[in-house]
Amino acid sequence: MTSAPATQPRFLTLEGGEGAGKSTVLAALRDALLADGEDVVCTREPGGTPLAERIRELLLAQSNEVMDPHTELLLVFAARAQHVAQVIRPALARGAWVVCDRFTDSSFAYQGAARGLDMAFIAELERGAVGIVPGLTLLLDLDVASARERTRGRDLLGDAVPDRIESERDAFFERVREGFRLRAASDPRRIRTIDAGLSAGLVASEAVAILSQYREGLA
Amino acid sequence: MTSAPATQPRFLTLEGGEGAGKSTVLAALRDALLADGEDVVCTREPGGTPLAERIRELLLAQSNEVMDPHTELLLVFAARAQHVAQVIRPALARGAWVVCDRFTDSSFAYQGAARGLDMAFIAELERGAVGIVPGLTLLLDLDVASARERTRGRDLLGDAVPDRIESERDAFFERVREGFRLRAASDPRRIRTIDAGLSAGLVASEAVAILSQYREGLA
Repeated sequence: MTSAPATQPRFLTLEGGEGAGKSTVLAALRDALLADGEDVVCTREPGGTPLAERIRELLLAQSNEVMDPHTELLLVFAARAQHVAQVIRPALARGAWVVCDRFTDSSFAYQGAARGLDMAFIAELERGAVGIVPGLTLLLDLDVASARERTRGRDLLGDAVPDRIESERDAFFERVREGFRLRAASDPRRIRTIDAGLSAGLVASEAVAILSQYREGLA
Repeated sequence: MTSAPATQPRFLTLEGGEGAGKSTVLAALRDALLADGEDVVCTREPGGTPLAERIRELLLAQSNEVMDPHTELLLVFAARAQHVAQVIRPALARGAWVVCDRFTDSSFAYQGAARGLDMAFIAELERGAVGIVPGLTLLLDLDVASARERTRGRDLLGDAVPDRIESERDAFFERVREGFRLRAASDPRRIRTIDAGLSAGLVASEAVAILSQYREGLA
């Protein structure tokens, strides 16, 4: 019905749970590209445009109304379609690099592996409403106990109220992690796994090294 | 991948453009069912739950940010999945009739026929995230000029600011109408067309007569 999504060489994504250090790595990749004179757009999901950020608010808000898993999935893809159309495709079209905190792999991990929704249906949404795949994805892999420890430290610094997703139990985040690992195993050329249990500095330098090697492969 | 959506005999939907008289017909169907001692739930789309109504607000809000057609489509289906899970399925499960102002046929007409999105992708969304089809749908068919005339009268009564969809041009609403008519032609047993150019009283009594005949067929 629709063709396979097209790989975009200058589109880089970071995946992994909260507390894995995606923000630090994103900054390191951006700085490495800027140092080489590249045009770089850094963005995140869900969100990245005013409308997509409003959809993000709906996704994360705590409420008395239970959100149906399919509603969650479709809201995530609604935000993504907007983000791709308004931000990612225009940036790639002008030759910029785009570095994005989370993308479609997160939907396979969170809504597929953890919530149990049909992976084939998620792939249909990717084909029908997204249409692009990153050239390189870095998966920051961290065990759930360590991730809890790090986000607890962050909460003590002021961001204290967990959102709707953060409020899930450990078993949910175990399934998310396993979902990411299975996805990396099935597409090891695109998805490179980094042990996020290492120090932030080591994780960032490994990420920059992988990007450097990847760019040599493109040249 | 997923099975065909299941027809729900006690699920009735009303389709057609703004100004076609859906509200009047909805009240007439409700009254006819209540007069027979039936349990009836009246609802509408997009909306029908607090979360789905918040999604409706995003859909209808005027904004400087152009909404991507796929974002619109996915927001409509996100609201629908929530509405089906929280309101429609529970009501049908307890044996109630559900009368809904707009449902999936509107997505085929507005996002499919009028915005030009892939009908097969919309059908995937119906299969993957909705899973039910009404037993009977009444299409209130009205030419665009007459519909404009009626909604203009409504605007003069106070509801004066057109929303994002109402602000579309006549050519858009011509495509919506044609989309509904093609859909009715392809499924004439489920979708019954009523000439909404007749008086409100005649339209309502024809709708009640069709419902009565439909219920005899179920018995």
